[in-house]
Amino acid sequence: MKFYDCKTAPSPRRVRIFAAEKGIELDTVQVDLASGEQFGDAFRALNPDCVVPVLQLDDGALITEVLAICQYLEEIQPQPVLIGATAEERARSVMWATKVEHQGLAAARDAFRNSAKGLKGHALTGPTDYEQIPELAERGRKQLAVFFDRLEQQLSENEFVAGSFYSIADITAMVLVDFSAWIKVAIPDGAEHLGRWYKAVSARPSATA
Amino acid sequence: MKFYDCKTAPSPRRVRIFAAEKGIELDTVQVDLASGEQFGDAFRALNPDCVVPVLQLDDGALITEVLAICQYLEEIQPQPVLIGATAEERARSVMWATKVEHQGLAAARDAFRNSAKGLKGHALTGPTDYEQIPELAERGRKQLAVFFDRLEQQLSENEFVAGSFYSIADITAMVLVDFSAWIKVAIPDGAEHLGRWYKAVSARPSATA
Repeated sequence: MKFYDCKTAPSPRRVRIFAAEKGIELDTVQVDLASGEQFGDAFRALNPDCVVPVLQLDDGALITEVLAICQYLEEIQPQPVLIGATAEERARSVMWATKVEHQGLAAARDAFRNSAKGLKGHALTGPTDYEQIPELAERGRKQLAVFFDRLEQQLSENEFVAGSFYSIADITAMVLVDFSAWIKVAIPDGAEHLGRWYKAVSARPSATA
Repeated sequence: MKFYDCKTAPSPRRVRIFAAEKGIELDTVQVDLASGEQFGDAFRALNPDCVVPVLQLDDGALITEVLAICQYLEEIQPQPVLIGATAEERARSVMWATKVEHQGLAAARDAFRNSAKGLKGHALTGPTDYEQIPELAERGRKQLAVFFDRLEQQLSENEFVAGSFYSIADITAMVLVDFSAWIKVAIPDGAEHLGRWYKAVSARPSATA
């Protein structure tokens, strides 16, 4: 397997943490997003969407999208369990990873990509140009605040995001908290459960991946 | 199990088609989105995100998010296979279902929710008010056109969206095509592979679910 990564980007970091938790050592190729390597012909042949991560299997098959890659890694190396040991646990962790992705990461991405000076004309990832929409940056910040409240509520009733075990949902949510710092949004004051949880998941060795 | 549905909505339709393909008869409760039933206390206790679908398991557990629900149904009733028979097939169908969801359905939803007269102040699903952003409606239409080109390319090389077998990715993409009609966007003229595929998947008995 070969893993196309970018050390500074949030999306591939989700896979790096997932692999680190499992003790899987990925044969990694760094893609230089800052210089636009993802738009070059070589990378575009691997992923026409021009984003990392990409996992290339030994038979040449190309897998993109974080959840698809993580589920594949869970299948080839089930221990330690990061998605779930039962159908219900798996449904719960995929559900929460999806909520964090759609309501949290997407909001933070809207806020970042629609305001960063260096991303004019690139408000969406991928090869097509899209102008920034300042109102969308603002909406993203509002949506992110709402979602942090949602997470605080969930973590007031559960040790981890998807319930009683550390899972892909925690990895996604930790990456969300760290990515939010890019737009200068931190865990809200008074969100004590979110704070307790973040401290615990960040202390895991995999967090530096 | 109990399935909280809304007969007219695209998201729960993805689950209805999935279940129909498997011959699973869901014990269904209709939620009246038009009258705002999803914002009432009773439904909010089931899903604080105030959206359908929700699958309630026999032990009371509540599963939301289409992919999580479909993966659960695939596990409890593996045949006929709709996600994949191998780890690689599963990765491929989840990857494509995710692409259709993020690049297609999200774009069509942006276009619809940011322009529909009845959705002023409700540009995002859920209990929080968000004003419509007309530029985002426009961007959604552009993004949808780009994604239809991407699908045409994929279907020029594959019988189905995720490769050689009918999968959750086809269900998601068929629902996308039908949802796009809400904003008066059809399969582009000349997209012959997309047209051929749509005709085939729409002819399956499950398409009426």
